Amino acid sequence: MTSDFTLYYAPDTCALAVIITLRDAGASYDLHRLDFTKADQQSAAYLKVNPKGRVPALRTPVGMLTEVPAILVYLAQAFPAARLAPLDDPFAFAKMQAFNCYLASTLHVAHAHRMRGHRWADEESSFADMRRKVPQAVGACYDLIERDLLEGPWVMGEPYTVADPYLFTLAQWLEEDGVDPAAFPRVMDHRARVAERASVKRAIAEEWDAQG
Amino acid sequence: MTSDFTLYYAPDTCALAVIITLRDAGASYDLHRLDFTKADQQSAAYLKVNPKGRVPALRTPVGMLTEVPAILVYLAQAFPAARLAPLDDPFAFAKMQAFNCYLASTLHVAHAHRMRGHRWADEESSFADMRRKVPQAVGACYDLIERDLLEGPWVMGEPYTVADPYLFTLAQWLEEDGVDPAAFPRVMDHRARVAERASVKRAIAEEWDAQG
Repeated sequence: MTSDFTLYYAPDTCALAVIITLRDAGASYDLHRLDFTKADQQSAAYLKVNPKGRVPALRTPVGMLTEVPAILVYLAQAFPAARLAPLDDPFAFAKMQAFNCYLASTLHVAHAHRMRGHRWADEESSFADMRRKVPQAVGACYDLIERDLLEGPWVMGEPYTVADPYLFTLAQWLEEDGVDPAAFPRVMDHRARVAERASVKRAIAEEWDAQG
Repeated sequence: MTSDFTLYYAPDTCALAVIITLRDAGASYDLHRLDFTKADQQSAAYLKVNPKGRVPALRTPVGMLTEVPAILVYLAQAFPAARLAPLDDPFAFAKMQAFNCYLASTLHVAHAHRMRGHRWADEESSFADMRRKVPQAVGACYDLIERDLLEGPWVMGEPYTVADPYLFTLAQWLEEDGVDPAAFPRVMDHRARVAERASVKRAIAEEWDAQG
């Protein structure tokens, strides 16, 4: 049996949002797991799949896609019956896109300074400085999400959209980033609500079971 | 006369991509200029407009929008006759979105470490380290764009899309970031091609003329 999609991913990365969305969409897919401890994402074979050397990358029937916000919207458009985005309302669609872009370019970037400081600096002292700042920088993002962006019960209000698994996925790292969950009750309530979904439980189990 | 849109912006920021796209779309708009030297973007008045304290923010007839990739796609959808995005081809649309997301979350972030290191660290020594790394980190992004992402003559190939003013806008900073333009002939060719467009010349003039 051949699946329509193949997702190149690693466990405990933002790729989880894509696995959840593949399940929510009802897509047929295979998972191709990369081992970051072996630097699989920088191997010659993987760089042919995705020259960015990052995950996730989604092989679709018509070509490869990268960047989580783009992949999530693509799946929502490819499986309209699953109703995973406000496709018929350009303003609501733009609000959802703005939320996803904020996660990608501000929250995820703030988080990445804890373990991937080498992208932006060279000295150990700079990495230590960045790590010390992560609780504040990531916390400021959650403060904005808590106060202004998360409408509730889902990110966009009543309809569940692809913004929900994306926030859920990044919010897995909140405690590791040194952010106090008690300061963000609405974010934590959202995280718990998403965690109860069957598609999410299965995606998390699968994330760790799949082989490369 | 009342315009449909108001753009909150500052000169020499990524907001230029939105001004160009407002012109390309044929939208009626006003510009509201912020003065970063006076920290206008952190004023109480502006934080009511955009709690993120950043630019751009676009006031639309139905509400405020932020995040450049989301705003650009919104304008392309709101003005379909201008044909600024492949709206009828989900895969091509996703490729364009992936390009815009890469600019926002990787290239722009790499650039921001030259002047905005305080977002992610506290020590002067870290800021200096980050500044030293900018030519390499930004250069790596242009390397990927040059080799893999920029199809030519426009970003997406034959059709001009909102990805073009966005790349053009960020590429304004290439020399200031210490990147050697001679290493990226295709990027520089693209920059020159976009610069010749009438909408772009007018947007750049207007960017510096508008008052707050």
